[in-house]
Amino acid sequence: MTAGPETLERLHAAILARRGADPGASYTAKLFARGVKTIAQKVGEEAVETALAALGGDRMETVKESADLLYHLLVLWASLGIAPAEVFEELARREGISGIVEKNARPQS
Amino acid sequence: MTAGPETLERLHAAILARRGADPGASYTAKLFARGVKTIAQKVGEEAVETALAALGGDRMETVKESADLLYHLLVLWASLGIAPAEVFEELARREGISGIVEKNARPQS
Amino acid sequence: MTAGPETLERLHAAILARRGADPGASYTAKLFARGVKTIAQKVGEEAVETALAALGGDRMETVKESADLLYHLLVLWASLGIAPAEVFEELARREGISGIVEKNARPQS
Amino acid sequence: MTAGPETLERLHAAILARRGADPGASYTAKLFARGVKTIAQKVGEEAVETALAALGGDRMETVKESADLLYHLLVLWASLGIAPAEVFEELARREGISGIVEKNARPQS
Repeated sequence: MTAGPETLERLHAAILARRGADPGASYTAKLFARGVKTIAQKVGEEAVETALAALGGDRMETVKESADLLYHLLVLWASLGIAPAEVFEELARREGISGIVEKNARPQS
Repeated sequence: MTAGPETLERLHAAILARRGADPGASYTAKLFARGVKTIAQKVGEEAVETALAALGGDRMETVKESADLLYHLLVLWASLGIAPAEVFEELARREGISGIVEKNARPQS
Repeated sequence: MTAGPETLERLHAAILARRGADPGASYTAKLFARGVKTIAQKVGEEAVETALAALGGDRMETVKESADLLYHLLVLWASLGIAPAEVFEELARREGISGIVEKNARPQS
Repeated sequence: MTAGPETLERLHAAILARRGADPGASYTAKLFARGVKTIAQKVGEEAVETALAALGGDRMETVKESADLLYHLLVLWASLGIAPAEVFEELARREGISGIVEKNARPQS
């Protein structure tokens, strides 16, 4: 498929379509079969790999690890019934109301 | 702004525009000023928070933490001069050539 | 206190002693009051910081972040009623039976 | 070997002894051969797994994942020439001077 901002929407649809596939034939189906904990773990792991690739200054590896991260994040969302549009709305809402610049007003944990 | 798949592109543009702003007034500018290590760290932290929110089954919190994660990921990309389109292309390339199902053919670390 | 391999045991005892303290006066008591999710999150965050410090080759920062990681790990254990000795036994058991070299025989996720 | 607070010291010695072993026969030697980035990544991954096990309330799995985390942390230290005693000293120093309760006086990132 061609790439563009709608890629995430299409990938989301592809992920949903594979949800009931054979876990032996589809990595996505295998993730769903293993459950939210395994998927959540993959999101954490890919983020660590993305962070390390970026700190190492490896541009191409950062792109690849980021793609891995986004894919697993979309699977995690799907496992909770979250559509990408909901997260986009949350991002747009923050930007619209006050700008992401105000993010530093959030209480620190 | 309204939300949609193009939200990430617009957020990317907004992040670039804030790059040279006053770090005291803009959280985004402050992140750039602190450098790639701090930004990479935030990506890792937000991913852990997203993973824990999802495992806890908290749908709304997962949406919010995911928005935090995407925002910091976009800042990390910007710090390396990576446009969202490059990551979308990587995702589309995988999907196009072989389907993300073949991801499990990757060598395990 | 002086340092040595027993430092973790003493820190564990100190953590237990602070469990019921005033969350306003003790960071440890504050962590317990906020619950296992906050503590688990801190373990993830400190590990990411340790990983980034090590990749950056900063020896002293790696020591400091590792100390932060161990402290929060001990608090996490305490929140589940796990004594350090249980983890040491698990490590010794692996070493004794087969050597940690066999760890790579574990099924990959 | 028997377990106790000195287990980490013994594991550290075992890790150093395997440093030059055949990467095909020793998981530890394989980690050293792959370098600090792979080791740092494993520390991040095992911490995420530990955090998720704890949040899931799985006591036994938390012990096992914590053992994995400590082992990889020791390998990371060894790769930078850090002995466990240095981290114990850092922990003892904090405890001695001011108590870990003052940790919350650290500047927040």
